[in-house]
Amino acid sequence: MKVTKFGGSSLADAKQLKKVLSIIQADPERRFIIVSAPGKRNKEDIKVTDLLIEYAEKFLASQDTSMIEATIIERYTEISEALNLSTALPEIRAYISNLKHTKHTTKPRVMDLFKSSGENCHAMLIAEFLSSQGSPAVYIHPKEAGILVEDMPGDALIKKEAYDTIRQLRHLDKIAVIPGFFGITDEGEICTFSRGGSDVTGSIIAAGVKASLYENFTDVDAIYAANPNLIPNCQAITELTFREMRELSYSGFSVLHDEALIPAFHANIPVVIKNTNNPEAPGTKISSTRSHSNQTVIGIAGDSGFTSIYLSKYLMNRELGFGFKILKVLKQFNLQYDHMPSGIDDITIILRKEQLTEELEAELIVKLQEELALDEIKVKHDISMIAIVGEGMRNSIGVASRATAALATHKINLEMINQGASEVSILFAIDENQEDEAVKALYQAFFN
Amino acid sequence: MKVTKFGGSSLADAKQLKKVLSIIQADPERRFIIVSAPGKRNKEDIKVTDLLIEYAEKFLASQDTSMIEATIIERYTEISEALNLSTALPEIRAYISNLKHTKHTTKPRVMDLFKSSGENCHAMLIAEFLSSQGSPAVYIHPKEAGILVEDMPGDALIKKEAYDTIRQLRHLDKIAVIPGFFGITDEGEICTFSRGGSDVTGSIIAAGVKASLYENFTDVDAIYAANPNLIPNCQAITELTFREMRELSYSGFSVLHDEALIPAFHANIPVVIKNTNNPEAPGTKISSTRSHSNQTVIGIAGDSGFTSIYLSKYLMNRELGFGFKILKVLKQFNLQYDHMPSGIDDITIILRKEQLTEELEAELIVKLQEELALDEIKVKHDISMIAIVGEGMRNSIGVASRATAALATHKINLEMINQGASEVSILFAIDENQEDEAVKALYQAFFN
Repeated sequence: MKVTKFGGSSLADAKQLKKVLSIIQADPERRFIIVSAPGKRNKEDIKVTDLLIEYAEKFLASQDTSMIEATIIERYTEISEALNLSTALPEIRAYISNLKHTKHTTKPRVMDLFKSSGENCHAMLIAEFLSSQGSPAVYIHPKEAGILVEDMPGDALIKKEAYDTIRQLRHLDKIAVIPGFFGITDEGEICTFSRGGSDVTGSIIAAGVKASLYENFTDVDAIYAANPNLIPNCQAITELTFREMRELSYSGFSVLHDEALIPAFHANIPVVIKNTNNPEAPGTKISSTRSHSNQTVIGIAGDSGFTSIYLSKYLMNRELGFGFKILKVLKQFNLQYDHMPSGIDDITIILRKEQLTEELEAELIVKLQEELALDEIKVKHDISMIAIVGEGMRNSIGVASRATAALATHKINLEMINQGASEVSILFAIDENQEDEAVKALYQAFFN
Repeated sequence: MKVTKFGGSSLADAKQLKKVLSIIQADPERRFIIVSAPGKRNKEDIKVTDLLIEYAEKFLASQDTSMIEATIIERYTEISEALNLSTALPEIRAYISNLKHTKHTTKPRVMDLFKSSGENCHAMLIAEFLSSQGSPAVYIHPKEAGILVEDMPGDALIKKEAYDTIRQLRHLDKIAVIPGFFGITDEGEICTFSRGGSDVTGSIIAAGVKASLYENFTDVDAIYAANPNLIPNCQAITELTFREMRELSYSGFSVLHDEALIPAFHANIPVVIKNTNNPEAPGTKISSTRSHSNQTVIGIAGDSGFTSIYLSKYLMNRELGFGFKILKVLKQFNLQYDHMPSGIDDITIILRKEQLTEELEAELIVKLQEELALDEIKVKHDISMIAIVGEGMRNSIGVASRATAALATHKINLEMINQGASEVSILFAIDENQEDEAVKALYQAFFN
């Protein structure tokens, strides 16, 4: 059995829902359907989730909510009518209207309750739609499904014991339609997942029911070897390992949020990314190992927004606990570093710029100087990280050589090279304004 | 004024002392002579310091010391007679004989007292020799010179306030001959320096008297761009910065111990390495900046004896304080790491093998696994670190590319590449049995 998740754009209107129907009916193994809230129908459109956030904000500000309620209900009404449905709509209407009568008053709780109703209502509608089209389906609320989470509004974490309950869903004789994006606390409260939204729910259900495959339908044909906006006719990736996917999404690949894959990864369930608008395309499969191991490098990713802090001190290397002291300071400042490459007597801290305000940076410099008695400290902004990714690099000589040659030919200066023992990736730090050129040069070197 | 230090082989016998005399007399700026104990006269010979260690061990074991005493005294007698000296010898004889009447009984104290007397006695002899040859010289004991150290036998550390006393030596009207290798505690006890021995004394005196140059005479013409035993006709390095010297000596260059240079480095005193047996050769100059900046890479060094521990965990990168936890474990085990390159979700700890026994390694693995809940942990032994060093790399594109191409051509697999923001060096971790080949390949790439 397969768990099949559809993103917001795949469920935006009646036309899209018909595509979803035929995808579900094309494979009887598709027994668990995870749904998002209706997404944008066109570029100017507003997602239902964003409408619900507006509704929540108006409610919290004790403003009139009648207009925004009507707008939300109208989205469902339109879909319901276009598909000749009737049962779910009254329930949806009541659910949306009743939100404002909640007993909750704190913002996080109110937000989670309102936000999650986009998925919840759509699941009711889609279950009715499937049943009406000869595919008996049942709407299952996360409470009933057993998606039990820790009580952290906006940042829910699945509880280990949840998987045993979810496993019982295997015995359903109908298609289960489950709203994505949220779970239920021990006290029965709604808590949303922080990142990856409905993708997390799909991953949890797939792990729970021990699915043979977790299908993730979105609006792209595949994950590409590099940013397709940058590289015309960029190669699609047919197979990826979880680790490769993770390394790519670290540096700018945003098709699927990597945290969403953890449950699937731990349960060793393969994941496939497919396109609702082109279901015939093979998509990209993500699993623990891949068969196409003849290809050394599978992708090139770039991400900007890094800052480097260079620290040097004669004989630093001999000082026991030097790195420890640095990390202690970073911890005090609540900063997360990404890399810390070291020379003999120097260490460079590479971290995401967004964590540092100008004041915080100045304080940090003073503190580091104070604690470590450095000979030199230098900050550099506007750095991009480029990752060359591929499990095949492990046993291949010359990848670093090809990559550095390509970058040197294009006069790209390397602030940092970082290749650890894993050899699943090589990372380069470069100047932000050379990022696009670097990605192009590396794509040329490995894919043309 | 210059501080001039001579190593043990430069002072091994009368013939060598005559070379030293002409070196000193060739330049009136050579006012501070730092001496080692007499070294080996030929390959089979025994250094006086080693004889003194034997003497100390016999004394500690309450064994008869008459034979070893005689052997030691004989070394000085031989030199004294060959140079027609008479004053110092009776003092030396008494000094050596009296060692066994020390009140000290603990091994570290006894060792330091005995070991240091090789330098001490030789300084007396050499002061007499210089004076007898028309270069008025005076023997100055470290107590008198003001080399005040913390009380750590075998691991003495100079006290900051010592430099003010040492500065007074500038006013001497004779050449000062100072024994290297040891200082004096507040209680008047002898404490030896741990590493670099007499080189440390020379560096301290140079910093104290604010010398224009610290000359270090040894038995090689220069520091070479790579191991000359490996590379026939290897290029000599004429100028080096302190940082380059440090990076080279990290990975196997052992002409001068890098810790010995700290006082000179901090006082910004240039250092020159010269050959007593070929004083005309220009030697290698080490200072804060170098003029020959047209050369990008100045040296290639390799050192074996490293172990790598590879840790991986899906989404490790998102866990705040992950690196901190690792360093905490290393600290608990009292281990010092050299590098810790990181991928997205993996970190490799590179450390010197000698720190780990088999049991300790097994315990460490268990502890890391326990603390970090890793997906994978892998240990690799017999790793060499190769460093390509040069300040010029900072502004030069393509060094990494040339280096990795050379290594790839020779089928050398890279366990790790590490280039930080400093760009004074690029480090490669490779298999130990490919070290020589790697150094040769890189020498070819950058020097031929």
